[in-house]
Amino acid sequence: MFILRLSFRGTGFHGWQMQVGVPTIQQTLRTAIERIFDTDQFPNPSGCGRTDEGVHAIDFIATVKAARDIAPDNLRMGLNTLLPRSIRVLSVERRDGYRDARTLVAGKHYRYIICRTEVLSPFLDDLVWQSRYPLDVEPMRVAVAHLVGTHDFKSFQASNTDVTETVRTIYHASLQERGPVIAIDIIGDGFLKHMMRILCGTLVGVAKGRIAPDDLPAILAARDRSRAGETLPGKGLYLYRLFEDESLLRSAEPEIFSPDILWKCR
Amino acid sequence: MFILRLSFRGTGFHGWQMQVGVPTIQQTLRTAIERIFDTDQFPNPSGCGRTDEGVHAIDFIATVKAARDIAPDNLRMGLNTLLPRSIRVLSVERRDGYRDARTLVAGKHYRYIICRTEVLSPFLDDLVWQSRYPLDVEPMRVAVAHLVGTHDFKSFQASNTDVTETVRTIYHASLQERGPVIAIDIIGDGFLKHMMRILCGTLVGVAKGRIAPDDLPAILAARDRSRAGETLPGKGLYLYRLFEDESLLRSAEPEIFSPDILWKCR
Repeated sequence: MFILRLSFRGTGFHGWQMQVGVPTIQQTLRTAIERIFDTDQFPNPSGCGRTDEGVHAIDFIATVKAARDIAPDNLRMGLNTLLPRSIRVLSVERRDGYRDARTLVAGKHYRYIICRTEVLSPFLDDLVWQSRYPLDVEPMRVAVAHLVGTHDFKSFQASNTDVTETVRTIYHASLQERGPVIAIDIIGDGFLKHMMRILCGTLVGVAKGRIAPDDLPAILAARDRSRAGETLPGKGLYLYRLFEDESLLRSAEPEIFSPDILWKCR
Repeated sequence: MFILRLSFRGTGFHGWQMQVGVPTIQQTLRTAIERIFDTDQFPNPSGCGRTDEGVHAIDFIATVKAARDIAPDNLRMGLNTLLPRSIRVLSVERRDGYRDARTLVAGKHYRYIICRTEVLSPFLDDLVWQSRYPLDVEPMRVAVAHLVGTHDFKSFQASNTDVTETVRTIYHASLQERGPVIAIDIIGDGFLKHMMRILCGTLVGVAKGRIAPDDLPAILAARDRSRAGETLPGKGLYLYRLFEDESLLRSAEPEIFSPDILWKCR
């Protein structure tokens, strides 16, 4: 199999997972792979997780069953030629056997970016969520600390899902403030559908005084979506870093926020 | 009249100037102004210069004849509600009389951004020009210094134009290197059609060894488009700063390049 490390701008895609009639990262990647291997007789590339519409990835892993042998770097270059420039293959590794990409990842770091400005830079429209409300970060900091640990996150799961295993472990949860920007960093062993977007919407509810910062334990205990805050748009969300190694995950600290996030080249 | 300070992402627009059948900044702005003033009986907004397809502006001035009185900040907020988020009105000032925006500007600072990476960040595709060739900046620095002064720039003007007044004064011309990024900064009293894009393409020709760095004076003297280098794509070009005051223009120095360029909010 081949292990692909990707980065993508989620704008215009309905997330990773293939769906009929809408563009997705998985379908776009599959189409490019079909052209390289000259066959459509292989399983879909598997992804390390679903992402929602408009969500971006700085780091994403996909695994691809080899339809024939090819030098990993040739596969990388071929895919980068065929894929739209909003999806880039950063590296390709060849490994024996086949594993679903989800089994390679012990945990994930998501970052949500909020820009508190009256007028948003015309270059950021699809890359951050703009809040015209002057959010106060101190109560948000109190609230976010309650998320660390092993909890049932059912209150923070989209209601239109039938996933019942809703216990997850969060190893790190914090905020960074840089001028008008707030970056919310959460590192955990797994994330439910819309979980990051609802967690961040709940923190915004705290900043607006609608939710008390120390209500977070009670909201978790309620196991009730209606107790949590709004679901923020996907466009502010970045799958920032994947952890293949559980020991690294437990002690991980987020990078300092920097506008460099959009400029990382290779 | 109203003086509008704009910033826009040029992606998807065929530059500032109205053209039949294609989206332009001028037409988009006019449509929004028509809705606010509830009339189409006024001249087109005038711009401080044409920009090419895909070219961005950090700073742009447009003037609008008042069809009726309105508080400047209400005009700003109304336009920002009506305009696409790729065009933002940063400020509006009311002034007596009417002047074409070009008469308000004594000079301009353009910046061209090149990213020398094999794999370009998926967030930068429409925001920089990627060179897979490892351009050497030292000969480019020698070449760019030849541009400072008052010269006939006919060799650096698009061939499909009948503008015959081709003498311009460049007050500052330099390069900055930050990791894989090269930023080319040129400050002058005026720019011909495609001039920045041909100047930068000529510097790339120098970096590739196709043009000798000290050939620039001879290329200028030739007054012949075919002697200069290629025309780089518009997407790497930013109208970065306008100078209303000629004394500031003469001593202007470019800001240090920073990825913050895309993050300036208000």
